[in-house]
Amino acid sequence: MMLQAAEPAIILASASTARRAVLEAAGLRFEPRAAAIDEAGVKASARAEGMSAVETAILLAEMKAERVARHAPAALVIGCDQLLVCDGEWFDKPVDVAEARAQLRRLRGRTHELVTAVVCLRDGERIWHHVARPRLTMRGFSEAFLEAYLDVEARHVMSTVGAYRLEAVGAQLFDAVEGEQAAILGMPLLPLLGFFRQHGVLKA
Amino acid sequence: MMLQAAEPAIILASASTARRAVLEAAGLRFEPRAAAIDEAGVKASARAEGMSAVETAILLAEMKAERVARHAPAALVIGCDQLLVCDGEWFDKPVDVAEARAQLRRLRGRTHELVTAVVCLRDGERIWHHVARPRLTMRGFSEAFLEAYLDVEARHVMSTVGAYRLEAVGAQLFDAVEGEQAAILGMPLLPLLGFFRQHGVLKA
Repeated sequence: MMLQAAEPAIILASASTARRAVLEAAGLRFEPRAAAIDEAGVKASARAEGMSAVETAILLAEMKAERVARHAPAALVIGCDQLLVCDGEWFDKPVDVAEARAQLRRLRGRTHELVTAVVCLRDGERIWHHVARPRLTMRGFSEAFLEAYLDVEARHVMSTVGAYRLEAVGAQLFDAVEGEQAAILGMPLLPLLGFFRQHGVLKA
Repeated sequence: MMLQAAEPAIILASASTARRAVLEAAGLRFEPRAAAIDEAGVKASARAEGMSAVETAILLAEMKAERVARHAPAALVIGCDQLLVCDGEWFDKPVDVAEARAQLRRLRGRTHELVTAVVCLRDGERIWHHVARPRLTMRGFSEAFLEAYLDVEARHVMSTVGAYRLEAVGAQLFDAVEGEQAAILGMPLLPLLGFFRQHGVLKA
């Protein structure tokens, strides 16, 4: 017996290995397809136009899904985006270790939010979306810890916004974490599974 | 530069692959050693004597750590235990698929608690303990879903109390989850890391 219906095909419009792992672990069958959009440009102009982080994350998730859906109109296309917001400041993935160090110093001892949007398109129309807002409190770590951390994580700090992988050594940066683990990894899973059941994709 | 001090050696008194994976992912170096104690017997007599689930989970975690600490007095020994409690009822790992089915029917549509204790011993003395109580709400799934789930998870349902792996297809059983993901997997990680920093095991 199968948990997932044979139709529609599901496409994940993301190249993120963490998002892919979340959906695969939950037993979903889907095809990942990276969607190339100018994220930094969209974020900058959204910010300049006064859009909120929530609106911007939804916009970016929808743009990624639309880019992929053009070539797969019958599929159910999932688009996602995650923005890190701390004291009103939006963070981007650091470009090098020096920027990772600077970001971690700004996040240290503070609570930040991971504004995490997921959008589903079918036949080019948005049929569902959800925004999760997990909150993470970074502890007041020492400079010695920071240097040791950057040493251990040097190969990874540029791959994530905030320069941490909570599912790995990044856990040592935190005092407290609130929210669904999958949402922190970029994919609000339980809400998405709920939508899939309503939509007949998964057995209810 | 290292995040963890060379001394003391850390021993995890557990054979659980999920607990081991949580600690390894967080960058800890330790040695796992299974501690053979009569868990079912201890639980039954603790319950008969009117001990609470929290007291019983701490007792079991401490017994496992003590069993291992006898042969490694200088080490820091971590013991853990997790009890599933739903409407006052304590659950054990199901012994077969039929019992898994019966447990899932009892948990369906209800919120249960995973009472999760972790204890640290050094020189035979308990120097720290913590109890996390994540809460999970199972959705009102259909009998057709339940049979498909048991079919997919048949090889795994006997390995966990509650007959689910939240980190896998078990996610499809739930409406809502509150608490640290690592604690749900049996190891309250952020509190343990905090203790390790206070105790000089990890760089602060």
